[in-house]
Amino acid sequence: MDRSIIDKQFRRVPRRPQSSQQAGFEERVRKAISGQHFSKTLDITPLIIEHGQVTMSMPVQPKVYQQMGYVHGGAITSLLDTATGMCAVTLINEDEMTLTTELKVNFLGPGEGDTIIATARTIKDGAKLLIMEAEAMAVFADGSTREVAHMTTTYIRIPRSPQD
Amino acid sequence: MDRSIIDKQFRRVPRRPQSSQQAGFEERVRKAISGQHFSKTLDITPLIIEHGQVTMSMPVQPKVYQQMGYVHGGAITSLLDTATGMCAVTLINEDEMTLTTELKVNFLGPGEGDTIIATARTIKDGAKLLIMEAEAMAVFADGSTREVAHMTTTYIRIPRSPQD
Amino acid sequence: MDRSIIDKQFRRVPRRPQSSQQAGFEERVRKAISGQHFSKTLDITPLIIEHGQVTMSMPVQPKVYQQMGYVHGGAITSLLDTATGMCAVTLINEDEMTLTTELKVNFLGPGEGDTIIATARTIKDGAKLLIMEAEAMAVFADGSTREVAHMTTTYIRIPRSPQD
Amino acid sequence: MDRSIIDKQFRRVPRRPQSSQQAGFEERVRKAISGQHFSKTLDITPLIIEHGQVTMSMPVQPKVYQQMGYVHGGAITSLLDTATGMCAVTLINEDEMTLTTELKVNFLGPGEGDTIIATARTIKDGAKLLIMEAEAMAVFADGSTREVAHMTTTYIRIPRSPQD
Repeated sequence: MDRSIIDKQFRRVPRRPQSSQQAGFEERVRKAISGQHFSKTLDITPLIIEHGQVTMSMPVQPKVYQQMGYVHGGAITSLLDTATGMCAVTLINEDEMTLTTELKVNFLGPGEGDTIIATARTIKDGAKLLIMEAEAMAVFADGSTREVAHMTTTYIRIPRSPQD
Repeated sequence: MDRSIIDKQFRRVPRRPQSSQQAGFEERVRKAISGQHFSKTLDITPLIIEHGQVTMSMPVQPKVYQQMGYVHGGAITSLLDTATGMCAVTLINEDEMTLTTELKVNFLGPGEGDTIIATARTIKDGAKLLIMEAEAMAVFADGSTREVAHMTTTYIRIPRSPQD
Repeated sequence: MDRSIIDKQFRRVPRRPQSSQQAGFEERVRKAISGQHFSKTLDITPLIIEHGQVTMSMPVQPKVYQQMGYVHGGAITSLLDTATGMCAVTLINEDEMTLTTELKVNFLGPGEGDTIIATARTIKDGAKLLIMEAEAMAVFADGSTREVAHMTTTYIRIPRSPQD
Repeated sequence: MDRSIIDKQFRRVPRRPQSSQQAGFEERVRKAISGQHFSKTLDITPLIIEHGQVTMSMPVQPKVYQQMGYVHGGAITSLLDTATGMCAVTLINEDEMTLTTELKVNFLGPGEGDTIIATARTIKDGAKLLIMEAEAMAVFADGSTREVAHMTTTYIRIPRSPQD
């Protein structure tokens, strides 16, 4: 089999051109994240917002520690889920919203360093379901990095009712 | 096939009698949870602590909301993971600790009501791995309830070093 | 908190009464399973078919072995997925079909014995999504049993087109 | 934050140089796959065997169909799990073997075409656990392709006893 066929795997390029209905996704992501109390509780902020790929950042600080002084797995999952949720916002139309139906995290190393960053990208941009993956990485003061977690997750598109 | 054989499935009774090394697990759970900054950030408290089964509670309050006014999926996962983590503490020996290796959540309904409670119980109490499930439920002021999420997760046992 | 509230968790009773549109689900399950070449390849057969709960059986035989002489994890997953798929058939209307969107398996012990049986039951019977769990158990010649695997999975309901 | 830090994410390069103990992994993979009855039942064959990355192929044929004439999700999972299992063989020492502890699959499209190929690669090559991802793709007679499924999975390293 031609190696070029195999090399098509694991590509995460946007599957569909951005439609006019998706225009303004950056503003919608910023509005959504600023309306999230929980992201504020964890001091999560957006670093990069692109069509189908989003990077968020969370400082490593005592309020997210578990009993051993590392970032709690739930806080890491929250960062990953926030990144994929905002990535989903870049893919939906203005009259849609999304709900998380499932997520799965593999933990790769301790949540430590100065900051945890998480990048979400699109596995499938479907008519009904959005499937994403995200990866969290610890960034230390000296710029070195270490892998923390990998997530896959599914969102379902639902119509936004007028009052939402 | 004898129906009684099939009825052995989905049982979640303790697989092994509690050993003397596990004595005092309630005190160890209370110590672990009180040392968790993140649980305090979310106001998570234990309701029931048994050998192989633990129930935790988290109030529904603005600081855990997502942008639609429901509890953020990351906060729900944090509650579930705290319940399973404490359930793991009831199953390990004094000279052991555990690390989460993976978790998967299916979301069943919105995070709402007065309180979310999560009960964790044991699927497999193995020599190397602990496999758990947990379920989160919204409890409303009138005592009515609604299912919120189901999780399965794996912990690995590791030796506790003297200074831990 | 009232213990009776906590005891509502992990219940797997049918969420909705069986509608007239679901009548005849047993016949539809038997028709679906008999149309599955792959189930025949693995000699999977139904043991119990109820509204929202289904048990299937698969013999332990060389053609499903991995290199160590146990049943391959893929064959166990196939049995679990067949059980949940048939369980989904008991919950949908005549004019619907389902697609698996995701599945996650935790392996609990080796696939051995005379027969592996898998029981699927319903976690959520939703308007758009069906969420199920299933458990696989090894049954030995002497009637003793051992747990093999636990799965959670999501199906999406889709309209059946006239020619399906 | 420096974009070059973010670009470190999602890299799947070998984490550690191949040790002398891992030499001969290709031969060990070919021996393992030839000892798998289940892979033969599904006609799964290796296409590419590298240190930390393996591609396997499975023909689309009636014996793996579900009732709608597509490849059964269980057969796709079996192909993915075989690819990751053989990828694990390229990472372990001669005196080790591995057991699957969990797997999660997201289905992206129907199992169709002439052949399904699956490539597995390494997320974490740890001292105790191996975490992998794999992707399955349908290949049609004209060389066109379509994504079928994505999997993440965990293997645990265990010592091989002399008689294995």
